[in-house]
Amino acid sequence: MKLTSEQLKRFDEQGYLFFPNYFSAEETAILKASVPEVFAQRREENVREKTGDVVRTAFAVHTYHPVFEALIHHPRFVEPAEQLLKDKTYIHQFKINGKAAFDGDVWQWHQDYGTWRADDDMPEARAMNVAIFLDDVNEFNGPLMFIPGSHTLGVLDAEHDTSTTSYPLWVINHTTIRKLVDRGGIVAPKGPAGSMILFHGCLVHASTSNLSPWDRVSVYLSLCAVSNHIRRFKRPGYIAHRDFTPIECLPDDCLLRHYDVALPWKNGTPAGELQGALQVA
Amino acid sequence: MKLTSEQLKRFDEQGYLFFPNYFSAEETAILKASVPEVFAQRREENVREKTGDVVRTAFAVHTYHPVFEALIHHPRFVEPAEQLLKDKTYIHQFKINGKAAFDGDVWQWHQDYGTWRADDDMPEARAMNVAIFLDDVNEFNGPLMFIPGSHTLGVLDAEHDTSTTSYPLWVINHTTIRKLVDRGGIVAPKGPAGSMILFHGCLVHASTSNLSPWDRVSVYLSLCAVSNHIRRFKRPGYIAHRDFTPIECLPDDCLLRHYDVALPWKNGTPAGELQGALQVA
Repeated sequence: MKLTSEQLKRFDEQGYLFFPNYFSAEETAILKASVPEVFAQRREENVREKTGDVVRTAFAVHTYHPVFEALIHHPRFVEPAEQLLKDKTYIHQFKINGKAAFDGDVWQWHQDYGTWRADDDMPEARAMNVAIFLDDVNEFNGPLMFIPGSHTLGVLDAEHDTSTTSYPLWVINHTTIRKLVDRGGIVAPKGPAGSMILFHGCLVHASTSNLSPWDRVSVYLSLCAVSNHIRRFKRPGYIAHRDFTPIECLPDDCLLRHYDVALPWKNGTPAGELQGALQVA
Repeated sequence: MKLTSEQLKRFDEQGYLFFPNYFSAEETAILKASVPEVFAQRREENVREKTGDVVRTAFAVHTYHPVFEALIHHPRFVEPAEQLLKDKTYIHQFKINGKAAFDGDVWQWHQDYGTWRADDDMPEARAMNVAIFLDDVNEFNGPLMFIPGSHTLGVLDAEHDTSTTSYPLWVINHTTIRKLVDRGGIVAPKGPAGSMILFHGCLVHASTSNLSPWDRVSVYLSLCAVSNHIRRFKRPGYIAHRDFTPIECLPDDCLLRHYDVALPWKNGTPAGELQGALQVA
């Protein structure tokens, strides 16, 4: 599972790599079948949309669900991430984003590393995102939009938006977005369920609302270089993990066969992980 | 400016016709240049978005602006509309929709004729829409989405949504949309400024929010068969016009050369047109 030099070059220039049909239909079906039981849970980790009783984001699912715990050990993205980050990695954030049919709301233009630095004191942008499509993604169900090359500018100024959606976000102002788009345009990778995107922690991205009757569920993993772990626990542990244990890969069939995995929160989320441990004024 | 039998057949089946590059760059530039002075006005006819001091819809612009008054006499859509509706037509509604970069909000799934019947007591669906692009429309700036063939089902049940956006709308429920999309899919015609869409008053349509840095300004004209004029003045006259005078075409160069046109509201909107004349419980 090594990236080619051509892929490494493209990642460097564009800030992302798209792998259509990367997980098989069988693997994707196993992941997808586990989503309803996750979304049905009433727990703090499940953030709901402003409108409708519909899950926007389910955090930290790998801590209690065996299928998603197996997923995070998958060599098909752990090895490329190690290669790009030149280090072992740990899970900084795990989420399943619903982007539900009709109710899925926007994510405004942002960089993930902006938040990781501002809130979590992550030293460098040596962390990246993995998006795995659990539904077909088309132009109508709110695909991820990227501004290619925007990751090369490092951390951009951002403002904390706590009102637009149900989840607060550090968003980038309009003037900056105009400049970035003039330079790099906008792309929105589309493809069948099972496709995967790797993207840089500084790549500026957004997604529109989903007015279509098609859900657009995706798993988002943020993998951080172990040597670059966060220094501040301002956010709850289920949003910004405090366990920096390097991920060891399972075999490539880890979604199809049973492997024993640890499920530390399977009997409930520890109280200390539900809140910030360090309040900042 | 006659539609071919092939076009008439397609309109019957799909509920819309798309004409890319229908107005020249020069004509489109003239229309586009007049928009800022319209949007800058503080008048009741200009409905602003919930977020940002940005115009969502400017109604009745043809009553006071010579360029847009000339536009409504254009044979390139008046003649096709007369052909499709088998009657002379009048302007039932005129609007410029901003769908502004960053702030342009969604329009949920709806049929225009549903509102025209429920609120305005328009007897039959013998009215149609003309959308003229004043900006390039692409997948990122909130294009109009249609469910092809949905017009053949007549008026569908709808609920009055007064909360989602800044403009109330009769919206169609999710179950119905699922069925319609299973049957007909979704299309979103895209093309350069100057393109035009003709669509049936019962065609179900929507548009997502515009997160891109590109405005997507369009003119929307609703032309009603004169014999099918509205019977109830519940809504203000600037939203549902009460002047049923048949449109007479100007020559094809009416955007490029000066023709004298009447501007009945050029000195201000008559008080009686700013409110509903018939309150319904």
